[in-house]
Amino acid sequence: MMDLKKLLKPRTVAIVGASEKAGFGGDTTRNYLKFSKNLDRLYLVNPGRDTIFGQKAYHSLSEIEGDVDLVILCTPQKTILPLLEEAAAKNCGGAIVFASGYSEIGEEGKVLQEALVEKANKLGIAVMGPNCAGFANFIDGIFAFAFLVEERDRRGNIGMISQSGQIVLGGLDSPNMGFSHVISSGNSCNVKVEDYLDFLVEDEDTKVVAVYMEGITKPKKLVAAFEKAAVKKKPVIVLKTGRSAKSQELAASHTGSLSGADKVLRAVFERYGVIEANDLEDLMNLAASFSWLAEAPKGQKCVFMNVSGGEAGIMADLTDDYGIELAEMSQETKAYLQTLVPSYGSVNNPFDMTAGIGYNTPIMVQAMEAISKDENVDAIVIAYTITPEIWDDTISHMVEAVSIARKNKDLKPIFWIPFIEHTRHKESADILKASGTPLLATGKYGCSALKKILDFSTSMFEPMKPAIPDKIYRTSYSLSEFESLNYLQKYGISIPPQKIAATEEEAIEAAKELGYPLSVKIHSRDIQHKSDVGGVKLNIQNDEQLRTAFRTIIDNCMKNAPKARLDGVLLKPMLKPGTEMIIGVNNDKDFGPMIMVGMGGVFVELFKDVQLAPVPLNQNQAEKMIQKLASYPLLNGYRGGEVCNKAALADLLVKISEMAAECKDTVKELDINPVFITAEGVSIADALLVLYED
Amino acid sequence: MMDLKKLLKPRTVAIVGASEKAGFGGDTTRNYLKFSKNLDRLYLVNPGRDTIFGQKAYHSLSEIEGDVDLVILCTPQKTILPLLEEAAAKNCGGAIVFASGYSEIGEEGKVLQEALVEKANKLGIAVMGPNCAGFANFIDGIFAFAFLVEERDRRGNIGMISQSGQIVLGGLDSPNMGFSHVISSGNSCNVKVEDYLDFLVEDEDTKVVAVYMEGITKPKKLVAAFEKAAVKKKPVIVLKTGRSAKSQELAASHTGSLSGADKVLRAVFERYGVIEANDLEDLMNLAASFSWLAEAPKGQKCVFMNVSGGEAGIMADLTDDYGIELAEMSQETKAYLQTLVPSYGSVNNPFDMTAGIGYNTPIMVQAMEAISKDENVDAIVIAYTITPEIWDDTISHMVEAVSIARKNKDLKPIFWIPFIEHTRHKESADILKASGTPLLATGKYGCSALKKILDFSTSMFEPMKPAIPDKIYRTSYSLSEFESLNYLQKYGISIPPQKIAATEEEAIEAAKELGYPLSVKIHSRDIQHKSDVGGVKLNIQNDEQLRTAFRTIIDNCMKNAPKARLDGVLLKPMLKPGTEMIIGVNNDKDFGPMIMVGMGGVFVELFKDVQLAPVPLNQNQAEKMIQKLASYPLLNGYRGGEVCNKAALADLLVKISEMAAECKDTVKELDINPVFITAEGVSIADALLVLYED
Repeated sequence: MMDLKKLLKPRTVAIVGASEKAGFGGDTTRNYLKFSKNLDRLYLVNPGRDTIFGQKAYHSLSEIEGDVDLVILCTPQKTILPLLEEAAAKNCGGAIVFASGYSEIGEEGKVLQEALVEKANKLGIAVMGPNCAGFANFIDGIFAFAFLVEERDRRGNIGMISQSGQIVLGGLDSPNMGFSHVISSGNSCNVKVEDYLDFLVEDEDTKVVAVYMEGITKPKKLVAAFEKAAVKKKPVIVLKTGRSAKSQELAASHTGSLSGADKVLRAVFERYGVIEANDLEDLMNLAASFSWLAEAPKGQKCVFMNVSGGEAGIMADLTDDYGIELAEMSQETKAYLQTLVPSYGSVNNPFDMTAGIGYNTPIMVQAMEAISKDENVDAIVIAYTITPEIWDDTISHMVEAVSIARKNKDLKPIFWIPFIEHTRHKESADILKASGTPLLATGKYGCSALKKILDFSTSMFEPMKPAIPDKIYRTSYSLSEFESLNYLQKYGISIPPQKIAATEEEAIEAAKELGYPLSVKIHSRDIQHKSDVGGVKLNIQNDEQLRTAFRTIIDNCMKNAPKARLDGVLLKPMLKPGTEMIIGVNNDKDFGPMIMVGMGGVFVELFKDVQLAPVPLNQNQAEKMIQKLASYPLLNGYRGGEVCNKAALADLLVKISEMAAECKDTVKELDINPVFITAEGVSIADALLVLYED
Repeated sequence: MMDLKKLLKPRTVAIVGASEKAGFGGDTTRNYLKFSKNLDRLYLVNPGRDTIFGQKAYHSLSEIEGDVDLVILCTPQKTILPLLEEAAAKNCGGAIVFASGYSEIGEEGKVLQEALVEKANKLGIAVMGPNCAGFANFIDGIFAFAFLVEERDRRGNIGMISQSGQIVLGGLDSPNMGFSHVISSGNSCNVKVEDYLDFLVEDEDTKVVAVYMEGITKPKKLVAAFEKAAVKKKPVIVLKTGRSAKSQELAASHTGSLSGADKVLRAVFERYGVIEANDLEDLMNLAASFSWLAEAPKGQKCVFMNVSGGEAGIMADLTDDYGIELAEMSQETKAYLQTLVPSYGSVNNPFDMTAGIGYNTPIMVQAMEAISKDENVDAIVIAYTITPEIWDDTISHMVEAVSIARKNKDLKPIFWIPFIEHTRHKESADILKASGTPLLATGKYGCSALKKILDFSTSMFEPMKPAIPDKIYRTSYSLSEFESLNYLQKYGISIPPQKIAATEEEAIEAAKELGYPLSVKIHSRDIQHKSDVGGVKLNIQNDEQLRTAFRTIIDNCMKNAPKARLDGVLLKPMLKPGTEMIIGVNNDKDFGPMIMVGMGGVFVELFKDVQLAPVPLNQNQAEKMIQKLASYPLLNGYRGGEVCNKAALADLLVKISEMAAECKDTVKELDINPVFITAEGVSIADALLVLYED
């Protein structure tokens, strides 16, 4: 485990390749001198210069007398390994490598990157990059970033990690963002995005973490950091590219990252309350909102305050689109508000305040206090455009009202959503920020972010032990249905009666015990799709039919699967049919076993109506998965149909998830298709287990 | 038909209630004097003043010597009717009424509004409002708007209509919007949103029309204006509130509007290529983009140009989310572009230009020209943040490159999408605008707008005669299945053989002709849900079963529907079953018959997987409706299933739509449930027609 302290919180720093010219060396030097503190602990290194910007320059690292915690290498790729050797002699523990030409260029570069990792690990140096833009630590005043930025006070409480330097630059220059740390991790060679994430989750100066990532390399560390954040209730917002095939391809050529399965990652996010951003505007908007927010709302019920009937209508539609709950204010609150608006105004939610409230600061403060006191309300949202171009006095009245109202410590959280933007009025934004009131982005972005903030604020994290395999397994083999079902039974999962029979006579004997009607299927590890080779006969009613079925099945399989080893047939009583569900387990190479549930047939296949989650599940989580299916109403007495026993299905999901967690190094896949659900309970009609071989 | 010329293009104008004080009268006067031309044709009227802002003031309208085309009434509600009388004496043809207290306040106000309409119609005065904020005509230089606005040159080619004055204000003050006309229509008493729309669609100075509407009152006029716009290919963008129940409620209390059925309106939009905006940011963004765009793209294939691998990845995901087609450039173009980027760069789409192109104006012009020449490309999209806070020289290089490249008349359209905003760099925006390059909003808004612009630009409008009933019918009656099917047959729709039988003996006779197996159902206009009362027996095989079925059905219906008049039974040969589809017609009170198609069962009911369109349809439109069903793959050989005869289904839809159009004043509803579709064709298994009584 690499220690990041010398990398991210160095006491002494050397810029190698420091310069006055434009380029990595010059821009980094310029930034460092302009924005960093403790310049007496900085060494500038350039073989050809004695001074740089009036500061003493050293000709090499070895010329420096004391230790150097961090070296910032602004030099080309071929110089890096020798420089690391030199740095190590100065007790260096961290290096930033800006140079590109590593894994992002393909095979040749991968070899170079492996050599870099090997060298750095051997020397005990934590490397940021290569192919990165560096970092800035605003807490300790270290600005080691390679792109020139505008002069502005950027200190705040957002910790940001990005595999793209351009995106860090966007964050640094965005007027709403204030940072504890920003980190451009680039190709993330021996220090990974996951390591930085862990650092920022631990970091007391960081209130919210924003991450742009292209690939995952340390899933266990990632999950552990997510869990730590969930326990601390520190928001982690992630923009991960790779929703589309094209974007996966680009990530490979950008930072050499291989994107994991998107659906799996989303299920992991959901489990740990990680907030997913859909694009850059969303990432910045969410990060700034959490950063500004004085106190998290305790519930989801919002009152929207507008100054136009038209805008109130637009907001009503948007809240509906994003599932934002509109509070039903008490009669008392409504009656009070009615006294504040002119006779033509009516108290609704969204509430058109009219000029009566919106143009009058003290009255608006009273209105917000009354709304805040209402126990049916958790948050207030003011929806009004706030750009300097679209200016009217209403903005200053309302902003001032928020600022005054927020001085009351008991006031519930306030959010602000504009309708149009392009330009923000800086002074108003500053007042809102100082009052702990997030100023969200417009319409869709604003409502989507508000919903995510409300969900995060009101969710309860249920700790569980993550199940991630200890290694990557390469080979596997399938069990027969009989073996698969027995395997499940060992883990307390109830299975229907079953017998195998190698001969016709054994089959007749088995039927005596099981009773007719029966299903008869081929018993073979080598045949996974039994129907396809004529290996299934259903609804066998008597001995005579059974004998015929036995012979037919064996004949069919000998003909259609000539290489398969046939071990006889599997006999089971016909199950009472019910609604067909599918349960699956797939052991993801990064995140371990993921459990899936869906309704059989076109629901899973055509409408992709499935729910996915990491294992294990508790009963509550299992029930929520089932309820989230679009086809859920079909289990619940739809159009006079049966009300199925969802609790039994949830219980089965829990047991299978526990089995999958326990067998994370054994079970590769499980496919239960179908399992019947009825009013009484559930019964597994078929199962296929695939186990790891080594 | 009211003439809007004196209202919207007046030669002489009087402001009644003109003033120097804040408020409607003062603000309107101030605006008018500041922004209007031809002030010599303006009369200021105020009984208590001799001059206002140094201009002569009249004590009343009658004091004015010549005619007055337009009166702007800044006075309270109770003064309006007498003032209209006075105005009429001056040959007045238009009036703006700012006063509120009309239909938006409920019953009492509705009566006042009716009186206003009656008076205005009698006097031949086109009234804007009441409860509105007026208009501005930038072409003729008439600024009759009641809210103070910032000083800026607002003339352009967007025509905007809004039922909310606040939203017009937002548009007026938005830096990207340039207008021909803006109209705040308020309660829209005797001049409706539809009338203004017609005016702007006709208006040569208006290139794009943006509408915010809360309700529909003149559907025929609306559809006619939509059709006119579609034929001219003039973009009409509509933001209509009322997606949610809450928003419908608010519209009623805001401008007294009743919101029509949302799904119907969307189907009408789709037919005429009307572009729907989802919120205000979307409305402004779309309007400005169409306004700036030099030339519409000829196809949908885009090349995205980025200056960061990370941002290229984000764009790849967003284009996938919004179905934007990424062009596959020719080998030749790619090989050429490869010569422009450094060795580590690779030519993809989205294309990470790297510093090699992005930082170099002439090289970027060459790159864009090469991409534009590629016949596989229809448009170029540059994705880069462009706010002054996030500034680097790349922006000026790239903006300059666009400006130079666009001087080439053959260059394909260019769009620009930023990643983050909050502030735009005005000088860059001005250059892009001058070059005919839309600067869209960020991420989701930008991509959604781009897709809408591409769809609009590449769609073909297929003219058709709209079918809207001439009046609103209040009562209706149902036909029996037998009558319904015969009715359809009269319109060339093929139906299965059928016979009715009043007695058992008649049934036996009918069966001889039809042949077994048969379905037997009660024949009665009074029973719509035949199964529910035991009125259906299927798969009748012989005379004996038929006799039993006849008696059972009659007995069941006498018992379960004692008041129904029973006319015997309906006999039909059993149909070859197929996939069950549903076809319906519903005669919308505003837009006339709408035809619906969907797959039977949970697809329609649970997944709401239906398509809706105005009638009539042509074959192409009918086929598209079927293809848009999410369940479409099930008709198309899904998992080895039957490939159904979609052409036959489309043909049936066309015939039913033609019948519905012809019978727009007769047919209220038609419910064909189910119609079976097989590889051979379609057959109607049941039909229920409801006809208007008066």
